[in-house]
Amino acid sequence: MFNKDIETKVPIHELIAARWSGRAYDSEKTLSRGQIISLVEAARWAPSCFGDQPWRFIIFDKATNQSAWDKALACLVEGNKSWAKDAPVLLLACADSVLSQNGNPNRWGQYDTGAASLNLCLQATALGLMVHQMGGFDADKTKTEFSIPDQFTPMAMMTVGYQLAETAIPDDIKEREYNPRARNTLDENFFEGNWNMPLITEA
Amino acid sequence: MFNKDIETKVPIHELIAARWSGRAYDSEKTLSRGQIISLVEAARWAPSCFGDQPWRFIIFDKATNQSAWDKALACLVEGNKSWAKDAPVLLLACADSVLSQNGNPNRWGQYDTGAASLNLCLQATALGLMVHQMGGFDADKTKTEFSIPDQFTPMAMMTVGYQLAETAIPDDIKEREYNPRARNTLDENFFEGNWNMPLITEA
Repeated sequence: MFNKDIETKVPIHELIAARWSGRAYDSEKTLSRGQIISLVEAARWAPSCFGDQPWRFIIFDKATNQSAWDKALACLVEGNKSWAKDAPVLLLACADSVLSQNGNPNRWGQYDTGAASLNLCLQATALGLMVHQMGGFDADKTKTEFSIPDQFTPMAMMTVGYQLAETAIPDDIKEREYNPRARNTLDENFFEGNWNMPLITEA
Repeated sequence: MFNKDIETKVPIHELIAARWSGRAYDSEKTLSRGQIISLVEAARWAPSCFGDQPWRFIIFDKATNQSAWDKALACLVEGNKSWAKDAPVLLLACADSVLSQNGNPNRWGQYDTGAASLNLCLQATALGLMVHQMGGFDADKTKTEFSIPDQFTPMAMMTVGYQLAETAIPDDIKEREYNPRARNTLDENFFEGNWNMPLITEA
């Protein structure tokens, strides 16, 4: 995956800085089983409230189960299908709404699942792979297609694979693929001591 | 922070493997402003649905604003206060329930905030710091104390600081601090192609 420079006020770890969500996948490069297991191991070791591990992931590996992968691709909105079709692996992250230890509502189910997914994304970066999480999919359809119990909420579909060589990236996604990464300024999302109080950035 | 060995079927990146949530903080070691900014920069560069960045963090740095830090500590449940009192920095992560771009509900607000928090935890690990996220706090009280708008949900309070030297860890938390880390088996949370279908772990 090519590196996109980001501006930070102080350095951050290269793994965190290097992760970004591309769309240009090389459809000819598959993932090994070891790589897939490495991704889910990273998700597995995320933290969670009460250690409840509310995340569930369904893996769709085109190489081992093309029909399941086809069904997963068909759940995406058209705009995502157009590029996700080149990813050798799709993943669906689901969040438990109930604490497994006592059956009470788990208000951290989605928050903790987001953390597990991020661990997975960073592990992909470490392996030279690219993950793109998508909200644009038919969640109800995934529940039916993959027998997901009602207490679980499908949160994100993800593509995983190798990035296409830069010279091979089609024109229609090249511009988007090369866009600089952007974020709000620190002051918009991070406060000091109270809501909306500006962050102290100098010692 | 001392290292806790974890068992994984295949290796995962050392940063992801090394992160764990300790409780024994060294109250005499403060964080530099650069370290705090590094933590929030890591959170800032997390991915989010539509790039909406639904997370908001409030920083409570005892060294620069003790009264705000005191108020944050007072929002914790007693069991957490007992050890969190030694952490030089507390943080509150809040999730937007509304998409900033169009005012519609954001069903990924908590999921994306969990990802931002995890980036922050991993950056702390990279800096030799320890973060412990807590669900055990009075969310309504934090909303009042820190003027948090209704559309935001306080998700987690976090402690940040240096781990206490092993020889200095008090007996009453030593056992918990040295507990081996544990997770469900892979099969319990990760499925292959359909809900509850066992993950293929060998090539």
